[in-house]
Amino acid sequence: MTYDVIQIGDTACFEKTISESDIYSFAGIIGDFNPVHINKTYAENSRFAARISHGMLVGSLFSTVFGMQLPGPGAIYVSQDLQFMAPVYIGDTIKATVSVVQKLEKGRVRFDCIAVNQDGVTVIKGSSVLIVPRD
Amino acid sequence: MTYDVIQIGDTACFEKTISESDIYSFAGIIGDFNPVHINKTYAENSRFAARISHGMLVGSLFSTVFGMQLPGPGAIYVSQDLQFMAPVYIGDTIKATVSVVQKLEKGRVRFDCIAVNQDGVTVIKGSSVLIVPRD
Amino acid sequence: MTYDVIQIGDTACFEKTISESDIYSFAGIIGDFNPVHINKTYAENSRFAARISHGMLVGSLFSTVFGMQLPGPGAIYVSQDLQFMAPVYIGDTIKATVSVVQKLEKGRVRFDCIAVNQDGVTVIKGSSVLIVPRD
Amino acid sequence: MTYDVIQIGDTACFEKTISESDIYSFAGIIGDFNPVHINKTYAENSRFAARISHGMLVGSLFSTVFGMQLPGPGAIYVSQDLQFMAPVYIGDTIKATVSVVQKLEKGRVRFDCIAVNQDGVTVIKGSSVLIVPRD
Repeated sequence: MTYDVIQIGDTACFEKTISESDIYSFAGIIGDFNPVHINKTYAENSRFAARISHGMLVGSLFSTVFGMQLPGPGAIYVSQDLQFMAPVYIGDTIKATVSVVQKLEKGRVRFDCIAVNQDGVTVIKGSSVLIVPRD
Repeated sequence: MTYDVIQIGDTACFEKTISESDIYSFAGIIGDFNPVHINKTYAENSRFAARISHGMLVGSLFSTVFGMQLPGPGAIYVSQDLQFMAPVYIGDTIKATVSVVQKLEKGRVRFDCIAVNQDGVTVIKGSSVLIVPRD
Repeated sequence: MTYDVIQIGDTACFEKTISESDIYSFAGIIGDFNPVHINKTYAENSRFAARISHGMLVGSLFSTVFGMQLPGPGAIYVSQDLQFMAPVYIGDTIKATVSVVQKLEKGRVRFDCIAVNQDGVTVIKGSSVLIVPRD
Repeated sequence: MTYDVIQIGDTACFEKTISESDIYSFAGIIGDFNPVHINKTYAENSRFAARISHGMLVGSLFSTVFGMQLPGPGAIYVSQDLQFMAPVYIGDTIKATVSVVQKLEKGRVRFDCIAVNQDGVTVIKGSSVLIVPRD
């Protein structure tokens, strides 16, 4: 999608159930073995009462929407702001939605981002800027 | 590390060479198969001239430092802001560093984040807030 | 940590819940598809009554403690002896602990190794020698 | 293979080229991000001059031979001793060979283990005991 075609209000989403293997593989790539993610005993005794996903795993689902759908390949990721609102547990189904909120100069576009679980709880709110190609 | 012990200027880092398998596995977890990450032919004809890492993979290395070192297990991730400054290629060695810049109310601590490649180029700048336990 | 600083009695540990995906990924790296690890039907009819982890996966957690904590990067792994005492099942939380027991000549240090599950059952006992740098 | 059939001198082997992704995935399972394994810059400045495999990854290839060939499924791993003789680099092709050296009481069998690289250099020597079923 090009800068001229893109419209304020355009929206796209991606939805995935976060599995134990997603969390374990993510830990294995980035090296974050915080016990709240990979130690059941520790996590059950924490305030979360069970192992939770890395927030950045869930936040990365916005990248998927940007790279695959809106605006899709060819755009350049300029910035991503994330606020972690609620924990994501193994087996939660997360819907990550992005919406165009502003067309800036030099091909830049601002998006609102929201990730919601299967119970309608917002787990992440965010904001992104991408450079969208003109042609 | 507890809120009382943590000091402005405290710093910690994690360093890793980003492999092709890191990028492919990351794509497989989050579903971002943007061709600039996993299609060599496409990427070689893009402005980047080669496949690049997902920005969020590199940005997640800050989570590793927070979860494993400073402040370590027990802290709660409140927010993460990222500015993607330069691409990361397969084989780049990235050093992700976080530094305490401000102690806020209610146990909150603000960190500056910077990721630099093997040539000293800053690839990500960011800012984070975590709640650090008081005991 | 250097040879001079390290003391008899020094100890460090790493703890992780062993997931199905850990066992499957481990099988996929080393090629050990013994049905007791990856065939639920076979394993349920075996003496173990369920799929079990590769012993070497669990034994490798000592490597993690050596490489990440005690003595940490720079040490050289000379030998590792392992006795497999009890099976590890999917979902077991294993605590791998190493302790300095002897300082040998030429920078060598001997460690006792023990891995215990969430019920306090010893699953592996072992012994290791590493060369620890002098500076 | 059963205890009665197995003979002193019986031998079996498994051979694999150790890839960067093998090492990275192994690190991701066990949590051993020692920079000598996953940090190219660090490793090039170490005594090894390049990233090396975890010794335990290579040592686990004996488990593959035991579980898949000799004696095969049904045997129980009692112990594994490993001496790490030489480093294994990305791209090295390792042949892991086990040989029956002794038939002990109670169905136990002792094996010699050796892992050799493509240049004929012995990288690991070891010894194992397994309980082999009688029928």
